[in-house]
Amino acid sequence: MANILILGAGMMGSAMSVPARDNGNAVRIMGTPLDDLIIAHARETGRHLMMKRALPDGIRFETFGADALGDALDWAEMLICGVSSFGVDWFGESIVPRVPERLPVLSVTKGLIDNGDGTLTPFPRLWARHTDKRVSINAIGGPCTSYELAERRHSSVVFCGDDVDVLRRLKDALETDYYHISLSTDVEGVECAVALKNAFALAVTLAVGMTETTDGEGCDQAYNPQAALFAQCVREMSRVLALVNADQANLVYGAGDLYVTIYGGRTRMLGTLLGRGLSFDQAMKRLDGVTLESVVIARRVANAIRLSAERGEARLESFPLLMHVDALLSGTTGLEIPWKAIETEG
Amino acid sequence: MANILILGAGMMGSAMSVPARDNGNAVRIMGTPLDDLIIAHARETGRHLMMKRALPDGIRFETFGADALGDALDWAEMLICGVSSFGVDWFGESIVPRVPERLPVLSVTKGLIDNGDGTLTPFPRLWARHTDKRVSINAIGGPCTSYELAERRHSSVVFCGDDVDVLRRLKDALETDYYHISLSTDVEGVECAVALKNAFALAVTLAVGMTETTDGEGCDQAYNPQAALFAQCVREMSRVLALVNADQANLVYGAGDLYVTIYGGRTRMLGTLLGRGLSFDQAMKRLDGVTLESVVIARRVANAIRLSAERGEARLESFPLLMHVDALLSGTTGLEIPWKAIETEG
Repeated sequence: MANILILGAGMMGSAMSVPARDNGNAVRIMGTPLDDLIIAHARETGRHLMMKRALPDGIRFETFGADALGDALDWAEMLICGVSSFGVDWFGESIVPRVPERLPVLSVTKGLIDNGDGTLTPFPRLWARHTDKRVSINAIGGPCTSYELAERRHSSVVFCGDDVDVLRRLKDALETDYYHISLSTDVEGVECAVALKNAFALAVTLAVGMTETTDGEGCDQAYNPQAALFAQCVREMSRVLALVNADQANLVYGAGDLYVTIYGGRTRMLGTLLGRGLSFDQAMKRLDGVTLESVVIARRVANAIRLSAERGEARLESFPLLMHVDALLSGTTGLEIPWKAIETEG
Repeated sequence: MANILILGAGMMGSAMSVPARDNGNAVRIMGTPLDDLIIAHARETGRHLMMKRALPDGIRFETFGADALGDALDWAEMLICGVSSFGVDWFGESIVPRVPERLPVLSVTKGLIDNGDGTLTPFPRLWARHTDKRVSINAIGGPCTSYELAERRHSSVVFCGDDVDVLRRLKDALETDYYHISLSTDVEGVECAVALKNAFALAVTLAVGMTETTDGEGCDQAYNPQAALFAQCVREMSRVLALVNADQANLVYGAGDLYVTIYGGRTRMLGTLLGRGLSFDQAMKRLDGVTLESVVIARRVANAIRLSAERGEARLESFPLLMHVDALLSGTTGLEIPWKAIETEG
């Protein structure tokens, strides 16, 4: 089929090798400068160091190097960007300028950049600023955890980009009987919806910690409070989509992604700790101080809403739960779910 | 505060006594003719037979009787209808005609009646046909399980009805620091959204059974497939709301209710069994043959969509997942999630 270069050997980028290889493509995985241990482990064992799962046969694993990158870019017919959101600047500055126009990029990285004026920019648009060439930069949204993709579970995602013909080529190369791909040319809408889930997953999982406070850690989960916050998150996500003029049809990606993000990982852990009444600083100590994408995005979106509100383009009262999460993250308030503000009449 | 009569001693109706009593109201619970055992048990132990939780102090428990009903209706200032959806006709035919105009009704029962012509009617509208009086019939939507309400967990619901002043009276009587109440005059929209969750919870929990088929019963849950189906359910719920001309703002109630329904109860069990590949008949044997509300509502909504499609007002292709669930329930197909049909492009 195609020569696919995956740049960044994190869990999600590496997991993309599974549908890529199952569909008969040639695959090279090149780590970022921070991925040397992962690459060494994969070469030695055929397994991914953190995902703790076997990777497909026939993959060439490479550590990062300027020359090696040039060779790989010449070879590749598709480039999958597998950096985390903390590698976004590096990818934009060091990689994008070297990508030839013939080579479409498909990114697994989810997030939005706060432009400082209340507007938010998705990563594909940010990266496009780093090149004068007409490079097609596309991205993947939708609920898909890396380890389940590596186990070939049914996963439904959306590829978004400006050119539907390029999107179809990417889909042809990567779709399998378990990896289901929709296509969308609404880059802003998809990226906004899927980035929001990280911020709002923090909000829903507050309810997990709140229940543990009354019933003890490890208690049965309480779903009424979670569902109450889940519904409010969907409402506020819909309002953020309206604020950035995105199609409400993208709400399904946000809701689906929110659903899966609640069930595991460090975002759930942080939300749970905050829900138990720990301060953000206390919670971060328990999480070894590693900054989470969810924290970054929650702050960015809250900041964008505040700036929009100052310009009279948004009402802070429309986002009570997100604003409370932001206040918890900044340490300006203790846990106090704004139940009254969530009630509606009309 | 007020004299509140709860008619029907099922779990949800009985659980409403918790906020009602906590808020200082006088409460009587009268069983339906099928609730004698529950009433006897509650009188003897103060606990609910199926919910297996204590009910508040100071409640008068009564078995059903025509004279007792007359006395209770004279006494009551609010009537909470706590029948299940299988008691809907009984409530309409036997109770509603006796309700005086001064007595507002608030129903916990969720569901829609299929009018046989592709249109669906929520229960409050159905009941209104059983009386010539101008009785205010209101209903409760939103994600709220009875046992969690009885444990005073935070729960967020919406009361819907035609008269906002009546809704405010009901809210005043029942709101507590854990029972959070929004108000809506969009009865069709709210009732449609919350009824749909029963049908669509069947669809999402198919993924639970599918994973058990490959990984064994009791395996870790797989969230990618669940999230894929969850997102598609939100999409199809939104389309049903559009079909009945309901405000899309009600989607949050459907999504929130869907979230909580997936996590327990017999709807999850049935979806899981169908997801393991059992036929509907085989699954119902495992569930002792008790018909589920979710099955009834899935069939009704699917039927309404089919009839709308015949009139050219809807496209069956817009509801692939609901139509597959309906086909599974009728035994005309085996399990085969329509993954291809779920993919979108645009």
